[in-house]
Amino acid sequence: METYTSIPEDLKLAVLEKIKPTEAERKKLTAVQEELASEVKAAADKLHVPDICVKMVGSAARGTWLSGTHDIDVFISFPEETPRKDLEKKGMEIAREVAKYAEYAEDRHAEHPYLNIIYKGFDVDLVPCFRVASACQLKSAVDRTPFHNEFVKTRIEGREEDVLLMKQFMRGGGVYGSELKTQGFSGYLTELLIIYYGSFEKTVKAASSWKPGQKIDIMQHSELEHTEPLVIVDPTDPRRNVAAALSLDKFCMFIDHCREFLKSPELKFFFPSRPLPVEDKEFLEILESRKSSQLAIVFETPDVVDDVLYPQLYKMEQAAASLITEYDFSLIKTGVWSGKTETVVMLELISAALPNVKKRIGPPVWVREHAQKFKGKYEGDENVFGGYIENGKYIFEVQRKYTTAKGLLEDRLLNSSLGKQVHQSVSKGFEVLEDAEICRLKDQDFRVFLRKWV
Amino acid sequence: METYTSIPEDLKLAVLEKIKPTEAERKKLTAVQEELASEVKAAADKLHVPDICVKMVGSAARGTWLSGTHDIDVFISFPEETPRKDLEKKGMEIAREVAKYAEYAEDRHAEHPYLNIIYKGFDVDLVPCFRVASACQLKSAVDRTPFHNEFVKTRIEGREEDVLLMKQFMRGGGVYGSELKTQGFSGYLTELLIIYYGSFEKTVKAASSWKPGQKIDIMQHSELEHTEPLVIVDPTDPRRNVAAALSLDKFCMFIDHCREFLKSPELKFFFPSRPLPVEDKEFLEILESRKSSQLAIVFETPDVVDDVLYPQLYKMEQAAASLITEYDFSLIKTGVWSGKTETVVMLELISAALPNVKKRIGPPVWVREHAQKFKGKYEGDENVFGGYIENGKYIFEVQRKYTTAKGLLEDRLLNSSLGKQVHQSVSKGFEVLEDAEICRLKDQDFRVFLRKWV
Repeated sequence: METYTSIPEDLKLAVLEKIKPTEAERKKLTAVQEELASEVKAAADKLHVPDICVKMVGSAARGTWLSGTHDIDVFISFPEETPRKDLEKKGMEIAREVAKYAEYAEDRHAEHPYLNIIYKGFDVDLVPCFRVASACQLKSAVDRTPFHNEFVKTRIEGREEDVLLMKQFMRGGGVYGSELKTQGFSGYLTELLIIYYGSFEKTVKAASSWKPGQKIDIMQHSELEHTEPLVIVDPTDPRRNVAAALSLDKFCMFIDHCREFLKSPELKFFFPSRPLPVEDKEFLEILESRKSSQLAIVFETPDVVDDVLYPQLYKMEQAAASLITEYDFSLIKTGVWSGKTETVVMLELISAALPNVKKRIGPPVWVREHAQKFKGKYEGDENVFGGYIENGKYIFEVQRKYTTAKGLLEDRLLNSSLGKQVHQSVSKGFEVLEDAEICRLKDQDFRVFLRKWV
Repeated sequence: METYTSIPEDLKLAVLEKIKPTEAERKKLTAVQEELASEVKAAADKLHVPDICVKMVGSAARGTWLSGTHDIDVFISFPEETPRKDLEKKGMEIAREVAKYAEYAEDRHAEHPYLNIIYKGFDVDLVPCFRVASACQLKSAVDRTPFHNEFVKTRIEGREEDVLLMKQFMRGGGVYGSELKTQGFSGYLTELLIIYYGSFEKTVKAASSWKPGQKIDIMQHSELEHTEPLVIVDPTDPRRNVAAALSLDKFCMFIDHCREFLKSPELKFFFPSRPLPVEDKEFLEILESRKSSQLAIVFETPDVVDDVLYPQLYKMEQAAASLITEYDFSLIKTGVWSGKTETVVMLELISAALPNVKKRIGPPVWVREHAQKFKGKYEGDENVFGGYIENGKYIFEVQRKYTTAKGLLEDRLLNSSLGKQVHQSVSKGFEVLEDAEICRLKDQDFRVFLRKWV
């Protein structure tokens, strides 16, 4: 174990000054929450839906939200025995009634439908749910949230600032957010870490020695084996790993972030400077200095939410990588970026071109049947440069099918296993930009991605 | 087992017509052999060396020599108890006495010294040896030859033509000759195959189904395990594998040659057309059509015999290949050619250039000590493009040390493990020719090598 000096108090204060909601912010939030609760009750009464409870959940309800974020989660809970159809119908009717006073409303869908509204500047989710006796008897995943709320609320008091510090610290390390795009730490997971380790500082110190398989079971009630790198058994459900969505790389990035921070605790770990977009000239200079091959597969961004889009993009990234390596190109790395109109899968290769000649290694000469079949296939073929025996095996030098990675992708990418919406979009058309051609992509957010890429 | 029609008699006759010594050739050889025997005896008498026997050994003595070859092996055998020093001194004195009548003489050295002379147009080796009771009690390797001679002579009668056919057939397949350059079949080995299988045809048929580990033990007296692909236990020495010098590839080339011949028995398997030297224009066209990278390491041919030179060249070929692949270049194949003045180690690569950027994969982040050491080594270094975490491991993109294979070879080839004389010669200077630059090498024999190469 390495020893560290403590994290300076004034550093924490400096961070909190930027992220802790002000008294005014707090008051406004409370007022809006109360208003929303009344609106829901009123709507239920108006629509003659009895036995409804309104629950404020999420970080706003627990005092662990970051200043500047304006998210409120309002759960409209129905008795457990309510038929699902009724819950969905009536729940949404109530939500729509509330939405009459909103600036904006949009139907959304998780396991069941919910309504997202903008209400007095706040981003509010109105979520119908079942009121179940315990989190083990869930009817759907959202029903779990009130239990999380209960568990955290009673234990986090006095440590809200540690949660805020940790959330901002994770943001700074690029590992905050459990949506499928990020595959990082959720808010609830962060709160559990603070509850378990006791403080921001203790969590950072502990995490810097984490190894895959790290398990935290606050309630000592785990019922299942988990294989994810980090296992935080849900205190409200002995079968669930709260960190199931955390990827190995985000797990490791967090460990690394903790270690580096402990070496020199500075503000930049909470507020890293945002990289500047790369300009054409600089990008061309970087290409010249790296001398590798950059390929950008560009297509129209499919019109689906991130949680649908990103798993498909990561799948496509994998598919492109497999295709490229299957045909002998050497990959340096792959990446994904998606903007409003265009989406890009990036590939960096040792070289985007290969010689015409390709060496085919056959079976050993003495494995007679196979060897003769192999030889028969290539000998005398006009696409064959020549043949010989090497290490006891027949070798034929044949014409390579794809001598450029671009040609390969253009010809075979659509045969790869792609997700539904990505496949649809790529089918409509895509282009493969090489090196300097990538300057065609002007989106400034892409240029920021490109800065980190090269 | 596949079935074949027999090898046509007229094909065999057509071959024999070209390779079987004529009656005149035979008579001349016999006459010269007798002359040499008398000369040796006369010399021994003159020098007062008693108890000397003269033995004619080798293919000339067994009637299995190919027309046009003019090799005679004269063994001058001394009593077993002769001190080695005396044998060498007196043996060479006798040989030199005989050499007085020769057109040319040259001292050579195997396990002990012998004299090579040109005598009436014949290439004659005069070899002093011990007269031991059996091949197991050898004092040196040459002493074995008379035993081989005895064994073959008594068994080969009537099958000399089969030996001739087999020798020429092996020549046609490029597998004849057990010297270290070729690593193929020796004459004695060929004779043993004919003795064991009974005829040229039977040998060809059997060999086409050989597998590594094939063992033939005519005397059923093997005393050792051998690991070579083909094991022919020496009938005169139960511990020796006559095929020990045969390489796996020559073994396989012979199998392949036999199979192809049996499919369509034609004259070309005995007398393949010699490839024409490649001209500049054609070579440039081939380069353009293959689009791979050709490198020729050229240096002065060391002044040593082939049996010393070639093992060193093959070692250098291996060393260059290891160096090239160690530094991430992808090898297609390697080869060696040596002429009177210049020697060439050829390398064909996927590409002779690599990008500046090289991906260094470090230990997993959670193997803390190693991981931090790795990170500390690269982070902030000016030769590092960037770093990230991938599959749980630290990755750094660093400046590649050698971006061209030529630069790599020029800088590090001499640090490789090279044989003594080759190292001496390469140390004096070498150049690395790339692609079209290879046209600088005009030697017509090299151009023939190049034809087979591309």
